[in-house]
Amino acid sequence: MHATFKPIGRLRSCFTEKFGIPRQAGLVPEAQGVIELHPPYDRSEALEGLEGFSHIWVLYLFHGNGEAFWRPKVRPPRLGGNRALGVFATRSGFRPNPIGMSALQLVGLETGGGSTRLRVAGVDLLDGTPVLDIKPYLPYADRIEGAVGGYAAEAPGEALVVAFDPAAREQCRRLESPRRPELLRLITRLLALDPRPAYRAGEPCRRGFGMRLFDLDIRWEVDGRRARVTAVVAAGEDPGGHDAPGD
Amino acid sequence: MHATFKPIGRLRSCFTEKFGIPRQAGLVPEAQGVIELHPPYDRSEALEGLEGFSHIWVLYLFHGNGEAFWRPKVRPPRLGGNRALGVFATRSGFRPNPIGMSALQLVGLETGGGSTRLRVAGVDLLDGTPVLDIKPYLPYADRIEGAVGGYAAEAPGEALVVAFDPAAREQCRRLESPRRPELLRLITRLLALDPRPAYRAGEPCRRGFGMRLFDLDIRWEVDGRRARVTAVVAAGEDPGGHDAPGD
Repeated sequence: MHATFKPIGRLRSCFTEKFGIPRQAGLVPEAQGVIELHPPYDRSEALEGLEGFSHIWVLYLFHGNGEAFWRPKVRPPRLGGNRALGVFATRSGFRPNPIGMSALQLVGLETGGGSTRLRVAGVDLLDGTPVLDIKPYLPYADRIEGAVGGYAAEAPGEALVVAFDPAAREQCRRLESPRRPELLRLITRLLALDPRPAYRAGEPCRRGFGMRLFDLDIRWEVDGRRARVTAVVAAGEDPGGHDAPGD
Repeated sequence: MHATFKPIGRLRSCFTEKFGIPRQAGLVPEAQGVIELHPPYDRSEALEGLEGFSHIWVLYLFHGNGEAFWRPKVRPPRLGGNRALGVFATRSGFRPNPIGMSALQLVGLETGGGSTRLRVAGVDLLDGTPVLDIKPYLPYADRIEGAVGGYAAEAPGEALVVAFDPAAREQCRRLESPRRPELLRLITRLLALDPRPAYRAGEPCRRGFGMRLFDLDIRWEVDGRRARVTAVVAAGEDPGGHDAPGD
């Protein structure tokens, strides 16, 4: 038996590449997104009653993983890629049925003008993610007191202290806009989680790192537990020498 | 774009018909089930690391809904069928992509002997439900403190006080077995939630009600806020006169 699903919408987010996306929903509240519903699901009636909820579940397709495949074991980045775990013991996107779930804060519902949009925060999803379903977060059923989280008992802490070079801070201020709100704070929170692959985190690093955020390139250098943002520039502008995440 | 999924397993539960199933996971901890993984997903490595978690998310197909269809609004039983809400504001199974999610207690993992099984509790799923995915419940991401639950802010309370006729209590004791554990307590908890359609709950009721549980027929009568179990018998035995849920 097979089941065929069709996306009901698409999530637009600040994350225009995979590198740097927080590893779970809710870790960076400043990471915002918008779910745009496709017709015929974009009718305001289909959302009636949702305005009373603070959070929603978004079920989505893991996309951008290339050809779908699965292996019984995966190496979660959380464990530094050093320990293989059963795929069903992880939230990895490389799974038999590549469905993801994220509990996101529901910031607002925008209906009318020929479209229906849900503004969400705490996003951990790539821009363009196909959305399969939206459900209310039911605290009485979904918030399980005393649940034990195995190898992931604690939230990943802020691993790095983040500072901006004066020029980078100025660039950031200049590029902050309604389309790119709270940019300085967003970058600070994202880099504090240390998006580098764990196998590199121990390396002394003279080279910098880079990630794409919105239509911007963010560049930083790491020294011990300190990250220093060196540039925040429009993508394509003065690419300089930064490592691709897979280097 | 469409996505095609293939079940990784099947959930066996005590609920052999829809009527009487608790409306969310976790409401009746005595409701147990077993997830049987299909090959090639039934390899113990695929579960490695899951033993440290107290709860899992099960993503599944809502089945037994007949031909798939959706409408923008549904009438959740919780609201007595009196109020229509947007489908995305509910956990109804009648939705564009009929994927359900339940957070279940992980009671045990059984591997070896040619099969891999997960014993779960707090089940709200029909026997035979096709399972699409299993993920760990991550307390730091999934247990959202302060989340607001809109029209479903509180768990459904125990609506009825349940008593057994002496003969029914004796039948129940006799039918309790390792395959049907805690039967008396299970029936008590299920009926306390008042599985009747809400539009009937106000009716004075001289007729009885019936539900199937395992391979048993459970019959009860309701008077005000009191439910009285009148029979617990093997299915097919002396059917008597009970209402079908849709009467």
